[in-house]
Amino acid sequence: MDFKISLDRLCELLPDSQVEGSILSKDLEGIASLERARHGDISFLGNLKYKNLVQSSKASLILLPEDYIGSPKEGQIYLRIKDPSKGLASLCSYIEDQLSIAPEIAIHPTAFVHKSAKLAHGVSVGAFGFIGRNVQIDENVSVGTHCHVGDNCLIGSDCILYPGVKLLSRCQLGKNTILNAGVVIGSEGYGFDQVNGTHHKIPHLGIVVVEDNVEIGANTCIDRARFEETRIGSGTKIDNLVQIGHNVRIGKGCLIVAQVGISGSTQFEDGVVVGGQAGFAGHLKIGKGAKIAGQAGITKDVEAGAFLKGNPALPFHLSQRISILQKKLPELFNRFEGILGKE
Amino acid sequence: MDFKISLDRLCELLPDSQVEGSILSKDLEGIASLERARHGDISFLGNLKYKNLVQSSKASLILLPEDYIGSPKEGQIYLRIKDPSKGLASLCSYIEDQLSIAPEIAIHPTAFVHKSAKLAHGVSVGAFGFIGRNVQIDENVSVGTHCHVGDNCLIGSDCILYPGVKLLSRCQLGKNTILNAGVVIGSEGYGFDQVNGTHHKIPHLGIVVVEDNVEIGANTCIDRARFEETRIGSGTKIDNLVQIGHNVRIGKGCLIVAQVGISGSTQFEDGVVVGGQAGFAGHLKIGKGAKIAGQAGITKDVEAGAFLKGNPALPFHLSQRISILQKKLPELFNRFEGILGKE
Amino acid sequence: MDFKISLDRLCELLPDSQVEGSILSKDLEGIASLERARHGDISFLGNLKYKNLVQSSKASLILLPEDYIGSPKEGQIYLRIKDPSKGLASLCSYIEDQLSIAPEIAIHPTAFVHKSAKLAHGVSVGAFGFIGRNVQIDENVSVGTHCHVGDNCLIGSDCILYPGVKLLSRCQLGKNTILNAGVVIGSEGYGFDQVNGTHHKIPHLGIVVVEDNVEIGANTCIDRARFEETRIGSGTKIDNLVQIGHNVRIGKGCLIVAQVGISGSTQFEDGVVVGGQAGFAGHLKIGKGAKIAGQAGITKDVEAGAFLKGNPALPFHLSQRISILQKKLPELFNRFEGILGKE
Repeated sequence: MDFKISLDRLCELLPDSQVEGSILSKDLEGIASLERARHGDISFLGNLKYKNLVQSSKASLILLPEDYIGSPKEGQIYLRIKDPSKGLASLCSYIEDQLSIAPEIAIHPTAFVHKSAKLAHGVSVGAFGFIGRNVQIDENVSVGTHCHVGDNCLIGSDCILYPGVKLLSRCQLGKNTILNAGVVIGSEGYGFDQVNGTHHKIPHLGIVVVEDNVEIGANTCIDRARFEETRIGSGTKIDNLVQIGHNVRIGKGCLIVAQVGISGSTQFEDGVVVGGQAGFAGHLKIGKGAKIAGQAGITKDVEAGAFLKGNPALPFHLSQRISILQKKLPELFNRFEGILGKE
Repeated sequence: MDFKISLDRLCELLPDSQVEGSILSKDLEGIASLERARHGDISFLGNLKYKNLVQSSKASLILLPEDYIGSPKEGQIYLRIKDPSKGLASLCSYIEDQLSIAPEIAIHPTAFVHKSAKLAHGVSVGAFGFIGRNVQIDENVSVGTHCHVGDNCLIGSDCILYPGVKLLSRCQLGKNTILNAGVVIGSEGYGFDQVNGTHHKIPHLGIVVVEDNVEIGANTCIDRARFEETRIGSGTKIDNLVQIGHNVRIGKGCLIVAQVGISGSTQFEDGVVVGGQAGFAGHLKIGKGAKIAGQAGITKDVEAGAFLKGNPALPFHLSQRISILQKKLPELFNRFEGILGKE
Repeated sequence: MDFKISLDRLCELLPDSQVEGSILSKDLEGIASLERARHGDISFLGNLKYKNLVQSSKASLILLPEDYIGSPKEGQIYLRIKDPSKGLASLCSYIEDQLSIAPEIAIHPTAFVHKSAKLAHGVSVGAFGFIGRNVQIDENVSVGTHCHVGDNCLIGSDCILYPGVKLLSRCQLGKNTILNAGVVIGSEGYGFDQVNGTHHKIPHLGIVVVEDNVEIGANTCIDRARFEETRIGSGTKIDNLVQIGHNVRIGKGCLIVAQVGISGSTQFEDGVVVGGQAGFAGHLKIGKGAKIAGQAGITKDVEAGAFLKGNPALPFHLSQRISILQKKLPELFNRFEGILGKE
């Protein structure tokens, strides 16, 4: 990684930190895990599970929690800090700024911006970007190469659209929202009327509204509503390759891991957490703060605070218990037949 | 939603409808569900499950089945119609036409169309669209922004390719087919020969043929055949993020919900219905009209008309019964051990 | 398929082959499976399962294993060869060369290549391709239409990037690697710190390194590391719509079938084989040569050579046995209650 930070500058970034030890070089030049860090690198103890790797780490500086017991080697610094994760985040933001190159030109000469579109100060549009009619984009939005922003879309300030995002007509993004590469927002919903044995398209006239501070992973798809809107609540974070059907409503602060599928009209209250590859039938209500394990299949409403697993989904501990008993089925059948005879 | 329709025009669209009640305003200006509709909106009773929401709806006009019992409030109209879903579809088509803006220019000035390509009357190509050598496109096809139509592709009339579709070389689309944003048709199949422990690529020289009236969801991928063709039958509707392997043959009128995966050379007869996230091994035959529940894992041929669930997949009712008994396993083990002793 | 090959040329391509029978036409003009082949076509017996289709095949020439017993019809040739799969591969490469049209122009006039990028001899960039700052691309690389190659990326010789690939900044590809359409390499990892109940973004400063001879399927996503690198080992083949999280390390020669999901920091040793739609939790170690069945859910480390199935995953044969016993649960409960009484 191509950055430098001096010890002084690092201590400015992390004002509450305590330095133990010393290093010769003025500059730290990389960041790496405890195991992989080399001389000159910064490392950190983010997860106590890796505590025993601290002593053998070759990092020149290690961020540690305040109560970590131990002393640095010669030519090494321990930087103790109340919240190492938060400290690390401050450091990373600093590095990120150093690594990224400011776009040379706000609107790339190969981009196409319709004359009726309104782009606020600080908006950049990458090569081959397309901005349709009557689009409104607020301050400091970055639209990547090969992005499509359809007619009548609205984009709040400070959003980032990575390369190849398709934001289809009339959809809306709140402030500070990030769409990773290849995201599709506003595809047609999957709904058909059956007439005399053939499937007839139901037009989807609604839109998708993504609120503030949302992040959406690469190649994830969110369908537009039949009427009205499909909505993603503020602060919700969605991973890659997730499918969100038409008229779904996701609450605030939800976490939805990769490859989850949510069928049409299902509603999540706030703070729902879903593990990877879980699937939801349509027209369900998932209560506040519910947790759904990876690969679970949800076909019924879920109460607030519930923790479910499996398909069909059961309360987590019951599901775990049944899994253990299933492993004993061969033994049970053998004993049963031993005592009571084969049929 | 930005449209208007007068009561008179609406009655023309729905010729068999009966009006009960009256409204002051001449125009209706939105369409919404019974719960969300406000003054000025049209609403509808599409599913009898929501019957009890009709009376409290604030919609100015409600589409209802002929046998619905009840009367409109003051300033409200009940429009009774034999088939409300079909009526709604007619209305939606009308609104869709009003909402969509006709493309300004048939071939966008930034698009690239190879000189050997033949585009019929009414074909539009969006910004940064690419049309390769010897491509033939029939009447009234809309190719979106950033689409790739590879060398020697054939596209039937009235198709819609949403932004970012990749239709790779030599593949074919029938009439009136819709590819949502990010669809990939004609990617290389996943097949390798193992020679001395390393995997060697098998060239995939075949194509993909998509027949008439097919719809394919966003970011879905369909691999080209090794030789010959991967084929999607007419009237089949495929949702988002579905994977269809090389040499698969899907019959007519099938429904394949999001995130389903179908491995190479598997064949679906007509009218197969597959729930989300189900998976199919390769080289299987799935009989006519079979139904496969979401998340099912299919590793054997399926008979016509079968309804399967689970992994390994079992007949639906058996699978349901086993799920119920699994919940009783803790009790069974307890009783068994209570009566017959622990081992 | 639009190619021709004479019998003489075919025998040159397959030097160890033995001809039995004769044909009138000098040229063979197609390649098809035994069942579908017509007069003029080449066919082959690739899988002994299809042995009984040889005699009824209308192919003019059939590639067969040396020990196949039987004789060609009149006007038909049997071409016996030691390794028909390998022979077929040689033939396919020949056909592939005939079918593909050499790009007209190395750098398409609509492409954008930053002036600081270094492109070696034989590099082609398709229409609307984007090559960022300080990119280095080695000999004979083909970058498709609408591809994005971000700042500071490195691409080894003989790679193919199909249309719409997004290779984001600083990521690296080894030699002879193929990225299918819509692949995203280097998306932001899914990781958040929770501070006072809201999820805060963790910057992902690392990269993705894809080694030599790797193939990656359409619309697959590979996230960049938090620091350091996400790495895909040489010779590994990844199918469509696969999700690979940040900091994952995949060994050499692995096979990962469509729609698999691998969570952050999980490590695969060499030669791991994973069936479609399987899912892996984060921070796991999967031992050398392990096999994981489709749709399995892996939440614990896996030993080298293990073969697991199900969720929770169990050794394959135990899992199979339990599946069989589950089908007998209704009978077991009935007998149990018959003998010991209902509770």
